[in-house]
Amino acid sequence: MILYSMPSSGNSYKVRLLLALLGRRDVTLKHVEYGDIALLQAKADGHLPFGKAPVLLLDDGTYLPESNAILLYLGDGTEFMPDDRVARAQMLAWMFWEQNQHEGVIAVRAALRTYAHRKSEVTEDRLQALLQRGHELLQIMEDHLAAQDWLVGTAPSLADICLFAYTHSAQDLGGFEMSRFPALGNWLARIKALDGFEAL
Amino acid sequence: MILYSMPSSGNSYKVRLLLALLGRRDVTLKHVEYGDIALLQAKADGHLPFGKAPVLLLDDGTYLPESNAILLYLGDGTEFMPDDRVARAQMLAWMFWEQNQHEGVIAVRAALRTYAHRKSEVTEDRLQALLQRGHELLQIMEDHLAAQDWLVGTAPSLADICLFAYTHSAQDLGGFEMSRFPALGNWLARIKALDGFEAL
Repeated sequence: MILYSMPSSGNSYKVRLLLALLGRRDVTLKHVEYGDIALLQAKADGHLPFGKAPVLLLDDGTYLPESNAILLYLGDGTEFMPDDRVARAQMLAWMFWEQNQHEGVIAVRAALRTYAHRKSEVTEDRLQALLQRGHELLQIMEDHLAAQDWLVGTAPSLADICLFAYTHSAQDLGGFEMSRFPALGNWLARIKALDGFEAL
Repeated sequence: MILYSMPSSGNSYKVRLLLALLGRRDVTLKHVEYGDIALLQAKADGHLPFGKAPVLLLDDGTYLPESNAILLYLGDGTEFMPDDRVARAQMLAWMFWEQNQHEGVIAVRAALRTYAHRKSEVTEDRLQALLQRGHELLQIMEDHLAAQDWLVGTAPSLADICLFAYTHSAQDLGGFEMSRFPALGNWLARIKALDGFEAL
């Protein structure tokens, strides 16, 4: 298998983090940047609909896009996939929320502040609105993690790996005030202490 | 089980559509509107982190949010969940893409045009940008469906039900030009012809 991964992207980091935690060395890593995705799509000849990284090229030639779909594919049957059906559904709920709410605010504010090619989109009003909304979203995680160590059940799952990616850099890259969220800080530290953890 | 469902929301309609296609009559339907979600959260006493509908209340008292997580919970073991591991991963990729890209453009433009409480957010520039981006996203589906009848494999899956919800109303509610996308139109017709189909 080959993982096409964008070094600076949290969505790509998620998958690299899962591979590190699983101790898997059988996936070849290829770094890509924005401009490379169109080349990859041409190579996939119509079988890679979304122009985004990461992409996992399976041994049967299938190009699998979408970070969270890749996490679920690679994480199936591992310690990060709960056995219980209801816990699995709750894990999926956090992962869909991440793509629908968290990523579009936390990651987007970081991108606007750090990526040169997005400078033209930046306005003070937009940064301010993202800051406020981001603090609301982080508060949702804070309230949940004040009562339990992991997002779902009593052990780390794919939901924790998924949400760690953009949350752990929310202050440095996104400018969010993480000191407001002590339970979230403790949760980040718990993930960093997992066997095999690798930083971005 | 009780499904708390917002009548006008595509995310809620997805789940109602799956229940109809499965012929399930054992799930009680309760209509909710925006203001009701906070009441539901209070009832769930900290166990319903996201203030959104739909929400499925399971028989064990668990409140399960996120439309696509609910689809996967109810669809597990049914004809709409592919047996093949790679096909399941591809189905999930479409469902994450729906929440990350499609819903934030196709559904949001419809909401801005139809919901009174969102009127203050509407600008001509924003509507125009959403129109252009929406046509790009619908083109991705069009290109894919020009080559195959269903989003994944050779039978309808949860990905089709998921993406039908906001795509089928993209013209009437969102103002998108569906005549540009004939393969997408044929796919919508195939879903409407499924046994048990129910309109919004």
